[in-house]
Amino acid sequence: MKFLVINGVNLNLTGRREQGVYGTETLEEIQCEIVAFARAHGHEADFFQSNLEGELCTAIQNAEGVYDGVVLNAGAYTHYSYAIRDAIASVTVPVVEVHMSNVFAREEFRKKSVLTEVCRGEVLGFGKKSYLLAMESFWL
Amino acid sequence: MKFLVINGVNLNLTGRREQGVYGTETLEEIQCEIVAFARAHGHEADFFQSNLEGELCTAIQNAEGVYDGVVLNAGAYTHYSYAIRDAIASVTVPVVEVHMSNVFAREEFRKKSVLTEVCRGEVLGFGKKSYLLAMESFWL
Amino acid sequence: MKFLVINGVNLNLTGRREQGVYGTETLEEIQCEIVAFARAHGHEADFFQSNLEGELCTAIQNAEGVYDGVVLNAGAYTHYSYAIRDAIASVTVPVVEVHMSNVFAREEFRKKSVLTEVCRGEVLGFGKKSYLLAMESFWL
Amino acid sequence: MKFLVINGVNLNLTGRREQGVYGTETLEEIQCEIVAFARAHGHEADFFQSNLEGELCTAIQNAEGVYDGVVLNAGAYTHYSYAIRDAIASVTVPVVEVHMSNVFAREEFRKKSVLTEVCRGEVLGFGKKSYLLAMESFWL
Amino acid sequence: MKFLVINGVNLNLTGRREQGVYGTETLEEIQCEIVAFARAHGHEADFFQSNLEGELCTAIQNAEGVYDGVVLNAGAYTHYSYAIRDAIASVTVPVVEVHMSNVFAREEFRKKSVLTEVCRGEVLGFGKKSYLLAMESFWL
Amino acid sequence: MKFLVINGVNLNLTGRREQGVYGTETLEEIQCEIVAFARAHGHEADFFQSNLEGELCTAIQNAEGVYDGVVLNAGAYTHYSYAIRDAIASVTVPVVEVHMSNVFAREEFRKKSVLTEVCRGEVLGFGKKSYLLAMESFWL
Amino acid sequence: MKFLVINGVNLNLTGRREQGVYGTETLEEIQCEIVAFARAHGHEADFFQSNLEGELCTAIQNAEGVYDGVVLNAGAYTHYSYAIRDAIASVTVPVVEVHMSNVFAREEFRKKSVLTEVCRGEVLGFGKKSYLLAMESFWL
Amino acid sequence: MKFLVINGVNLNLTGRREQGVYGTETLEEIQCEIVAFARAHGHEADFFQSNLEGELCTAIQNAEGVYDGVVLNAGAYTHYSYAIRDAIASVTVPVVEVHMSNVFAREEFRKKSVLTEVCRGEVLGFGKKSYLLAMESFWL
Amino acid sequence: MKFLVINGVNLNLTGRREQGVYGTETLEEIQCEIVAFARAHGHEADFFQSNLEGELCTAIQNAEGVYDGVVLNAGAYTHYSYAIRDAIASVTVPVVEVHMSNVFAREEFRKKSVLTEVCRGEVLGFGKKSYLLAMESFWL
Amino acid sequence: MKFLVINGVNLNLTGRREQGVYGTETLEEIQCEIVAFARAHGHEADFFQSNLEGELCTAIQNAEGVYDGVVLNAGAYTHYSYAIRDAIASVTVPVVEVHMSNVFAREEFRKKSVLTEVCRGEVLGFGKKSYLLAMESFWL
Amino acid sequence: MKFLVINGVNLNLTGRREQGVYGTETLEEIQCEIVAFARAHGHEADFFQSNLEGELCTAIQNAEGVYDGVVLNAGAYTHYSYAIRDAIASVTVPVVEVHMSNVFAREEFRKKSVLTEVCRGEVLGFGKKSYLLAMESFWL
Amino acid sequence: MKFLVINGVNLNLTGRREQGVYGTETLEEIQCEIVAFARAHGHEADFFQSNLEGELCTAIQNAEGVYDGVVLNAGAYTHYSYAIRDAIASVTVPVVEVHMSNVFAREEFRKKSVLTEVCRGEVLGFGKKSYLLAMESFWL
Repeated sequence: MKFLVINGVNLNLTGRREQGVYGTETLEEIQCEIVAFARAHGHEADFFQSNLEGELCTAIQNAEGVYDGVVLNAGAYTHYSYAIRDAIASVTVPVVEVHMSNVFAREEFRKKSVLTEVCRGEVLGFGKKSYLLAMESFWL
Repeated sequence: MKFLVINGVNLNLTGRREQGVYGTETLEEIQCEIVAFARAHGHEADFFQSNLEGELCTAIQNAEGVYDGVVLNAGAYTHYSYAIRDAIASVTVPVVEVHMSNVFAREEFRKKSVLTEVCRGEVLGFGKKSYLLAMESFWL
Repeated sequence: MKFLVINGVNLNLTGRREQGVYGTETLEEIQCEIVAFARAHGHEADFFQSNLEGELCTAIQNAEGVYDGVVLNAGAYTHYSYAIRDAIASVTVPVVEVHMSNVFAREEFRKKSVLTEVCRGEVLGFGKKSYLLAMESFWL
Repeated sequence: MKFLVINGVNLNLTGRREQGVYGTETLEEIQCEIVAFARAHGHEADFFQSNLEGELCTAIQNAEGVYDGVVLNAGAYTHYSYAIRDAIASVTVPVVEVHMSNVFAREEFRKKSVLTEVCRGEVLGFGKKSYLLAMESFWL
Repeated sequence: MKFLVINGVNLNLTGRREQGVYGTETLEEIQCEIVAFARAHGHEADFFQSNLEGELCTAIQNAEGVYDGVVLNAGAYTHYSYAIRDAIASVTVPVVEVHMSNVFAREEFRKKSVLTEVCRGEVLGFGKKSYLLAMESFWL
Repeated sequence: MKFLVINGVNLNLTGRREQGVYGTETLEEIQCEIVAFARAHGHEADFFQSNLEGELCTAIQNAEGVYDGVVLNAGAYTHYSYAIRDAIASVTVPVVEVHMSNVFAREEFRKKSVLTEVCRGEVLGFGKKSYLLAMESFWL
Repeated sequence: MKFLVINGVNLNLTGRREQGVYGTETLEEIQCEIVAFARAHGHEADFFQSNLEGELCTAIQNAEGVYDGVVLNAGAYTHYSYAIRDAIASVTVPVVEVHMSNVFAREEFRKKSVLTEVCRGEVLGFGKKSYLLAMESFWL
Repeated sequence: MKFLVINGVNLNLTGRREQGVYGTETLEEIQCEIVAFARAHGHEADFFQSNLEGELCTAIQNAEGVYDGVVLNAGAYTHYSYAIRDAIASVTVPVVEVHMSNVFAREEFRKKSVLTEVCRGEVLGFGKKSYLLAMESFWL
Repeated sequence: MKFLVINGVNLNLTGRREQGVYGTETLEEIQCEIVAFARAHGHEADFFQSNLEGELCTAIQNAEGVYDGVVLNAGAYTHYSYAIRDAIASVTVPVVEVHMSNVFAREEFRKKSVLTEVCRGEVLGFGKKSYLLAMESFWL
Repeated sequence: MKFLVINGVNLNLTGRREQGVYGTETLEEIQCEIVAFARAHGHEADFFQSNLEGELCTAIQNAEGVYDGVVLNAGAYTHYSYAIRDAIASVTVPVVEVHMSNVFAREEFRKKSVLTEVCRGEVLGFGKKSYLLAMESFWL
Repeated sequence: MKFLVINGVNLNLTGRREQGVYGTETLEEIQCEIVAFARAHGHEADFFQSNLEGELCTAIQNAEGVYDGVVLNAGAYTHYSYAIRDAIASVTVPVVEVHMSNVFAREEFRKKSVLTEVCRGEVLGFGKKSYLLAMESFWL
Repeated sequence: MKFLVINGVNLNLTGRREQGVYGTETLEEIQCEIVAFARAHGHEADFFQSNLEGELCTAIQNAEGVYDGVVLNAGAYTHYSYAIRDAIASVTVPVVEVHMSNVFAREEFRKKSVLTEVCRGEVLGFGKKSYLLAMESFWL
């Protein structure tokens, strides 16, 4: 299987800032581990990151027919982007929502995701392992 | 008269997906009909589509002094984009809000538009005909 | 096609009072233009006006099997009459909601319509032209 | 005992429309069964139906001193008519609220009744049998 | 001056029921006192009562140009009738809102009036004297 | 037919305390009358009472395939037990909700039932007769 | 009879500022008219004004046994002072709430009075005449 | 490592009822797969199921010092049991929240979990695989 | 006098976990001090602890006629158990609510007690001394 | 130890009015008993009462370094005075909140205290004994 | 220019308590720096501090015609004093709102100011420098 | 020191439209004054403007390590962009929020900023001077 792992706004900073919450590995290092994990199970993983809400929508649209599944960490857009929600709902490729931290144990505004309802499932709270578990949900 | 028909986020997929809601005509085909309808009444219609909230704002800003009216289907941004709202409020060219589906008969979050208050009027629920009626409101 | 144009509470005053919002044409004059517009396109239009919520329900009930479409401006009942909503839902003749003013740009309580969800579509903000566009949506 | 069975707005359509919810028996046929049921137990039943909120109030007022009990299905007025509520509260004849469908299993706005608080009791969800059970509550 | 005193839904029962709240005088007796009070000060008072929301709207519409002031006790419609509110707003004859009881000291739903905002003033809590004081506000 | 009448938390005290609300008959006495009523119509009634939310869930689960109907008075759990709600939703045996008092005429928190939506119907306000009417709804 | 007319916070500025809302008469001039009106009907009126919430409470406490009635315009404290509310509730001398402007037609926060519920009645919207009518309610 | 998999209220019915949502495998069959999965990775899994909120609390308390991790599907208690939340918060053994269905895509009341905030992480929407992924999060 | 001190869900862990909030004394040690305090004043104290909501209801029911007072720390059930509330309301033995910590200074959901309204009084924030003060309130 | 017992707005009336709620002892008599109770245990108690919110703040400020504890009954200010809350938070002398009545069993607005969160503890519902228990909490 | 710098409730404690939030400089020391800053730019600054809401209103009233601008830190009154709001609205001298701390980054209740709407501007979060910047806004 | 002044959506129109609110100076002219002001105090100022939410996030990210401070006017994104909020929170360079108009005195939706909580401070209401004061807060 072939997966697209999409990271949204501010996640390009992972590992460089707020290390108390997100650890010290950079997004690039985490993506290397994701690729390794996928390959070890005979699968492929591509990546996309953008700070622009609309580009994330386009990436989800373009995944249709190309990937078997999308693993999506939308960052702060998780909490209010009905545009991304509509993009997910308009494609048939299954999307799994992922968060590295336990977003429900943080600020009040993070306790609401407008995306989960249209995703296949959600994995949150396990740091970088959240990406691996989300991907594994497709072939387990 | 000269109109700019602006389509927002995910509307580039019209006719290709969610055909139960939006029909099978593509945005390109609908735009052809809009042009034909405009010409049949002696008017012109240009088009702009973007998934990026900020580019939609810029398009509205740039319509000032160039077009006699804007027909706007902002897609999911309709429900939370105060940026687009401010763009509409900052120009004098009249904007008419349009939706192909009856957004009030769908999910709860679609029952609120932050744009209507600063638009001249609104037409919703008539499929592609919503665009034609909105445009016609300028010359009727 | 044959249409019934229903006007609800206080709309009998149109053109005589609150001319800043509704213009100076009386309801009778507007109805003449509606008839002319309908005939020009080969259709017919009848009219009903009442200040009584229950009579509006009865009029909608009785439109079933007699008219091809109903154009409804319920006036202030728009905002709280679940009785009219149920009447619309109980008939198969399509109803299009109409408002002359942009009700979303007025008082807070006018920003909610309990009717839209069960109507086919809605046209608002174009003055008397709202009626014409709503009617035209049936044959366009 | 002598009962008045009052049916409110749009209930005159029972059996003719929305048969999925309300069945195929007309209000007249249901009223015949109610009469038969009452007579079988040695009681009498009269009927009143109106789409007009104020006429329903008047009917409740006039039941005072004439009937031993009122069985009331107010239709959509159930959810917002403080006028009917006040009419019930102003008479001493006991009123039992009735609904054919399980209104709590339908739209959100139907989950609130402003009448129950001033009624003696409520029976809902048993189709036409709701009327019979409500009436029987008086003599059981 | 010439006044129209309008009483809304269920107020025809005044003095006959709920005497703990409204006293034992009937509406007719109260109206006699109102007339006497008006005449004693050299004015005239006419009366209108209806349980029908729409008829109250019509009465307010028709007061325009005929009366110098309207004294309105809308009964339970006070709390939700935007139709009556619009009727008041559409005439230039000043309307004073009246309640015999202190509605703010009763049930929660009575603490909100949708009419006050468009009335000239409000008098409440003084029993039948509320009508007299409201009327006197015009000539004091 | 065979019925299970389930009484929830604190209902074991019926008839011994709060006699102003619930009368002076004990739960045992009421159950005797229920049995007598059922037998008089050729049916059977069994009983279950528990103060434990989870045991009420188990009782509802176990009614499946054994009883033709369940008559349920969940006591205070009515207002917040999504566990009991899920138990009702997970069985096919129809459940009728019952309350002896008019719970809508008591404290604010009693005005919400989380169970009604998944029950077949509801009978409330008729004292012990509520049980009889609820049971009768199955064979009427 | 002997009355105490209490004016609360910022009302010492009446007539000197915000003349669009409150007119050009000063509080002192209005008080002269109140005295004259009282005397003309054979009564007496004293006055108290303070910007301090606690002093207004004390004034209400001290009115007990000394005055036959209190006419109270609490100014902005009207909208949140449960302290003044408790002071009113703790005395037996009747208090009538007064506002010169129609506070319900102004800012949102002015639409709520925490005092009305414990007052005998309320008069609002008639300018300085509100004081006269409130006082007259005691002897009419 | 040694895990305790706790299933809450109504989950004992899994596979026997509501097969559209939960599939046709029974809880026993799913538990067999969980054991097999654990063993295949060199770990152990024990199980506990109860419909009683308090027994679930006790089970969580007793897991302390005995298990390396708890996988918890609390069923409907997820949405309101602060008792289970407190039990989780009072132990140091990490708890991972699990749901077979995508609870955010179901009824409104299921969109709120009072447990997530005190759990290490959450996995939802992957059917029985949710248990496997949650368990794997401990050793990945 | 004879008292029953009831401790609810998770309080069996007191002194063993979350020592920052609850101190290091176990529930057993605290109960010894309570007994000593009671005896020193010539009174008796019994104890009951359960994690099960329904068993706490039963314990309160059974205290009737046996104890002179109940001191109740319901743990997390404090915030949502209308079942315990009803149990308290259904007995005449006075119940005093107790919390060791200042629950209002902790999480948002702890700021609401559904029990206080039907208890005689409440003591909170003094650690184990809260139990002593609550008990003393009966004989002081 | 040396205590300051502060009584807020309207509490100077205690024992003279609303005797159903507060008993017939005056504040002075209650203060005598407080002093006696304090002395009997080898402590001292001073008193301060004011109707002025700001003076209560100043009294709390001035208690710093002079008293070992403050016992505070703020009266109606309890429900909205963030000023008093800040005064409490700005001193290190511990403050215990006290109410004679069970404020949670009275009006809705009394169910919220903005002070508790910054107090050490709270005692309510035991009449004048609330003061004694609060004071005793310091030395028990 | 001549400025009045008003400090409200509890700000007299600045520098002596809560030094983590407000620093160690006293209000007197801060006022010296304000005077120095004003003089250095050729202006004058006077000061007023009170814990009493009504005295703050009076101070604002009295600034009219005497000062060119008011710099106001109302302390906790910021969040609920409509009395101070009305005082600001009733004068023509411009008022600038000031807070030393970033009130939006503290407790929930501090995120709402009822004063900003009627002030010319607001400066917050820069410690004592907030006063200087606010003052400078008048002459910059 | 070196500052980055970021202007968000629609602020490129400043001075050209809505001159009643924003004055007649263009953004370019204002930026010239900002540079002049900075230089006069021995500092530097760079500028960035974009209508795209994600580009504003990137600009804030890139300011880290390059600038001593950021002055941010996010335009309408102020009210809902948790993405910009996260960008601010993820850098250590201090950000000061700025608004030219008094946003609290405009539409309801402008009264909430999701950014202030993570900014060092805020300056609003002084027109273009807001930028100067915000910048000056760094060196004053």
